[in-house]
Amino acid sequence: MTKRPLEILDQVLNGQPVIISLKGGHEIRGVLQGYDVHLNLVLDRAEEEVDGAVVKRGTLIVRGDNVIYISPSVE
Amino acid sequence: MTKRPLEILDQVLNGQPVIISLKGGHEIRGVLQGYDVHLNLVLDRAEEEVDGAVVKRGTLIVRGDNVIYISPSVE
Amino acid sequence: MTKRPLEILDQVLNGQPVIISLKGGHEIRGVLQGYDVHLNLVLDRAEEEVDGAVVKRGTLIVRGDNVIYISPSVE
Amino acid sequence: MTKRPLEILDQVLNGQPVIISLKGGHEIRGVLQGYDVHLNLVLDRAEEEVDGAVVKRGTLIVRGDNVIYISPSVE
Amino acid sequence: MTKRPLEILDQVLNGQPVIISLKGGHEIRGVLQGYDVHLNLVLDRAEEEVDGAVVKRGTLIVRGDNVIYISPSVE
Amino acid sequence: MTKRPLEILDQVLNGQPVIISLKGGHEIRGVLQGYDVHLNLVLDRAEEEVDGAVVKRGTLIVRGDNVIYISPSVE
Amino acid sequence: MTKRPLEILDQVLNGQPVIISLKGGHEIRGVLQGYDVHLNLVLDRAEEEVDGAVVKRGTLIVRGDNVIYISPSVE
Repeated sequence: MTKRPLEILDQVLNGQPVIISLKGGHEIRGVLQGYDVHLNLVLDRAEEEVDGAVVKRGTLIVRGDNVIYISPSVE
Repeated sequence: MTKRPLEILDQVLNGQPVIISLKGGHEIRGVLQGYDVHLNLVLDRAEEEVDGAVVKRGTLIVRGDNVIYISPSVE
Repeated sequence: MTKRPLEILDQVLNGQPVIISLKGGHEIRGVLQGYDVHLNLVLDRAEEEVDGAVVKRGTLIVRGDNVIYISPSVE
Repeated sequence: MTKRPLEILDQVLNGQPVIISLKGGHEIRGVLQGYDVHLNLVLDRAEEEVDGAVVKRGTLIVRGDNVIYISPSVE
Repeated sequence: MTKRPLEILDQVLNGQPVIISLKGGHEIRGVLQGYDVHLNLVLDRAEEEVDGAVVKRGTLIVRGDNVIYISPSVE
Repeated sequence: MTKRPLEILDQVLNGQPVIISLKGGHEIRGVLQGYDVHLNLVLDRAEEEVDGAVVKRGTLIVRGDNVIYISPSVE
Repeated sequence: MTKRPLEILDQVLNGQPVIISLKGGHEIRGVLQGYDVHLNLVLDRAEEEVDGAVVKRGTLIVRGDNVIYISPSVE
């Protein structure tokens, strides 16, 4: 049984924080509030590590073409 | 309940300034006056930090494919 | 009330010079004479700064995918 | 007899771990749980090597445009 | 009155040489003989500056996605 | 008489190894088992040279947008 | 009278060698045997200069998005 990539995201909506790895070395952590077919994302309580410090970003709309991967769970 | 990424932008139109992170290291702050499905943006009273100084840009039309993320609120 | 990004350009056609920021660090100033939906632009009396000197380019057709932003006014 | 590239992936769903080579030098190993026509992937028990150490990523949704190749088997 | 970017090119077909600025730092000069909607170009008597020397290229078909701008006239 | 680029690939399916040159400097050798219109490829008995050593990759699914060229024969 | 960029290629099919300039600095010389609308190319008796030496590549299928320009004639 196969899982559709985007449908996996439904399981983590408004749940525990996810990690978003972006092109250019950005890594953002936040609660996924929404997404669309382009993988545009809405993150709430987003945090980004910049030069070793955690910067709080509040709500973020991320353009999907920047996404490398989304990690909905960390073991 | 999921939120559509682009619809979030309706909530910040003509409101408090948003921060736009662009590919190539640009970061622009301004009041969002409009957008379209490509994430092309109209910003009013835009400011960009260049070499440590804030440069006022007035109105800007930003081509959507440059956008990494839009931060409509800062905690 | 929202403004459509491309419609803003109608207000500056054949008016005061606009500034075009392009990927790769080009910055061009000129009078906007036309555009299309891809943000292909026609500029008249275009000037580009190259190595600290202003080079006059006359008319330019700019391919839209190079555009970062268009600044129709400077405060 | 020719094999369709995406159909090959059906044979390794939920099987032995695959190796995913991504642009930018990322290499991820995990069990393929799903994919779509864009080569968006769902990986389970994903592991990534970062600075010589293996980092466990749990489940990952990888955006297809980052993929260089997928190696379903290693001789 | 607005000018459509591609229609401007009709005025310089088979006329005086145009300058084509390409991504990656190429700059080519030649007589425009044709174009299409992707900004694919046909240039005749094309010349390119390589390491300070002018190299004659004869006829060139340039793929449109490499174009930064076309300068049909130089003041 | 013209040859369609993709149809050429039919002639080398399951034949002698082909060489695939990929963006980013990868070069892969293997037996072509399938392809599609995006130039997504299935290679069998694939080998890649990494730091001067040949690494056997078994079967590979290569995403077509990484391909620079395919060399079905070497003189 | 304008010439359509792709139709120019019909004139050099199976004729004298053409030069293909590719992104990333590759330059390939060969006899054009076919092309399609994406500028995917089939070259016969292809040669590439690598580190100052000419390497014979036989037949090549070049993916069109790598092409900067095609030079069907050299003056």
